[in-house]
Amino acid sequence: MLAAPASIGIPLEQVDTPALLVDLDALEGNIARMAKAVEGSAVRLRPHAKSHKCAQIARAQVAAGAVGVCAQKVSEAEALVAGGVADVLVTNEIVGKQKLARLARLAREAKVGVLADDAGNVAELDAAARGERVRLDVLIEIDVGAQRCGIEPGARALALARDIAHCRNLRFAGLHAYHGAAQHLRSPSERRAAIAAAAEKARLTKALIEEAGIACETITGAGTGTFLLEGASRVFNEIQPGSYVFMDADYNRNAWEEGWPRFEQSLFVLSTVMSTPAPGRAVVDAGLKASSVDSGMPLVHERPGVEYTKASDEHGVLKIAAGAKAPRLGEKLLLVPGHCDPTVNLYDWLVCSRKGKVEALWPVTARGALY
Amino acid sequence: MLAAPASIGIPLEQVDTPALLVDLDALEGNIARMAKAVEGSAVRLRPHAKSHKCAQIARAQVAAGAVGVCAQKVSEAEALVAGGVADVLVTNEIVGKQKLARLARLAREAKVGVLADDAGNVAELDAAARGERVRLDVLIEIDVGAQRCGIEPGARALALARDIAHCRNLRFAGLHAYHGAAQHLRSPSERRAAIAAAAEKARLTKALIEEAGIACETITGAGTGTFLLEGASRVFNEIQPGSYVFMDADYNRNAWEEGWPRFEQSLFVLSTVMSTPAPGRAVVDAGLKASSVDSGMPLVHERPGVEYTKASDEHGVLKIAAGAKAPRLGEKLLLVPGHCDPTVNLYDWLVCSRKGKVEALWPVTARGALY
Repeated sequence: MLAAPASIGIPLEQVDTPALLVDLDALEGNIARMAKAVEGSAVRLRPHAKSHKCAQIARAQVAAGAVGVCAQKVSEAEALVAGGVADVLVTNEIVGKQKLARLARLAREAKVGVLADDAGNVAELDAAARGERVRLDVLIEIDVGAQRCGIEPGARALALARDIAHCRNLRFAGLHAYHGAAQHLRSPSERRAAIAAAAEKARLTKALIEEAGIACETITGAGTGTFLLEGASRVFNEIQPGSYVFMDADYNRNAWEEGWPRFEQSLFVLSTVMSTPAPGRAVVDAGLKASSVDSGMPLVHERPGVEYTKASDEHGVLKIAAGAKAPRLGEKLLLVPGHCDPTVNLYDWLVCSRKGKVEALWPVTARGALY
Repeated sequence: MLAAPASIGIPLEQVDTPALLVDLDALEGNIARMAKAVEGSAVRLRPHAKSHKCAQIARAQVAAGAVGVCAQKVSEAEALVAGGVADVLVTNEIVGKQKLARLARLAREAKVGVLADDAGNVAELDAAARGERVRLDVLIEIDVGAQRCGIEPGARALALARDIAHCRNLRFAGLHAYHGAAQHLRSPSERRAAIAAAAEKARLTKALIEEAGIACETITGAGTGTFLLEGASRVFNEIQPGSYVFMDADYNRNAWEEGWPRFEQSLFVLSTVMSTPAPGRAVVDAGLKASSVDSGMPLVHERPGVEYTKASDEHGVLKIAAGAKAPRLGEKLLLVPGHCDPTVNLYDWLVCSRKGKVEALWPVTARGALY
């Protein structure tokens, strides 16, 4: 693990770059906004920790009312449990003896849930749980539109629920009905239509399973783009938004309907202008390895007319519009990452600041936790 | 740093996934092919270590005849020097007091060079070198077509060379004339034209500087897509290819002319099929956080009709053509990353294999070394 690019108490101007900054006022505001959005409803909040991979943030979410967190990988869950999180749902299918054994072992230390979409995998999950003498919560992943993992809603899900219910070391815990593709549909009406369809598929599947005499306690899903819709559906009773703690350029391109909580951008890549070689062009020291470009280039924060147009490994090329204030050599610029989750995964440290000063350095507990 | 996903001696089938595999036969072959390509010529080989970030590989390149390596960041250079590399050219402008002090300090332990494209920065480089009582090699970066950093060739470069030559703690070492954009032009004729133009700009600038009585020893540049062209130019006397040790899907899309060394793909992401939810679709456990998609999706190695079509954080969706052999649940598949450099930067370990067995585990020495 690399040394942190800052020390506590220094002004932001002295932070070495590129560094991943978290504005604590904005972060805490976002955590509070989400807590408020679910307050008083029957819907449980289980934020997705794949966005932050940080035990400190997970604990803050739990302190604000979350029932636990989601993780995407066994190693991510292990890191979070080691960091003090007591309840983790691995929102993924886990395949392979080694991983299943680790998952079951983790259930000795924390409440652990996992997804399944295959009968053979369910048998292996049961064997792994038996091997560790634990009981694992298993949710069936149904495909409600994302066309990724997950079986078709309906009869196939019922058959798999029966399989799980027959396993002595598994507990059938419900349905995972996450519609990833809906999160970034730009208009509220498109997202509303997508989630209405998803909720109906989940509702019918739950009814089918319950008619067969199997309890179907949890219906979980939702992300930052849609969570109020699932929350209001009367079908979902758990939501998993992740990105809301940070936000990113891609989410900020969504149009939000009235009444939607206004999450603030709390995550920035602090960069330095390393070259001003020609009029209209400047280059910052943050490229592909400092800000993931899978969902588009980063945006230059509060610098109208300055556009980040091209990323190479360690360079970001800025185009300066005629009349715009040109960044000077050595100037520090804040970038808003295109996609927060894979950007956080590039860093060992979150440099947490308040009012222009470094207040804390939080390790990205599960950075690189792929397996 | 995470535990390695493998131990030495186990078969590949037992490696946990996603893991970054290096085929040692292919890697060693590539290092030998490059050594052979420059053998007997006046051109020095200084491979770019930003591709592998691995001290073991850098030392192997030096053992095969490289004069040293390039790095892109001070922290990357620090990690490589700590790993036993004695000569590093930082092929980048370094801006900011802290970084300049670290760069100068490093020159007490190793031969260190750096680029400049600004007179103010040259003065700061000199001050930093004076502070550490070292002499730094400085090359002027000229823009030969990449439109990134680097000043215009010609008179501006001469003025900057005079500035550097006047600094007591700097040595003007030559020109950096890297044409990044040329590396991935698909046809040999396009690359040939781009490098001919770049070489001519470098030649004229060198002549101008030498006419002013300033020695201009090194002309360095080139990458895996063009290095034979710079090598044959009679202008360049140093080349910096990096990706050739590994190769990637993007470089493999280039057409290569006859006589070009045939570098083999040595880098793979080993993934596991975690879901086979519907006919024609399978999902692997390697997504955006396991293989950088900035230059396109990874390719599924030696599985005709199986296409990696969509990456999310931790999922890769495979489309299976009618009639193609469908991957089965739990099967391990090799992926060829779209872009090797940012993919390597996602991993703590290179799992090195030969003939199907893990032979070594090499740390990615400079993983995440951004500053």
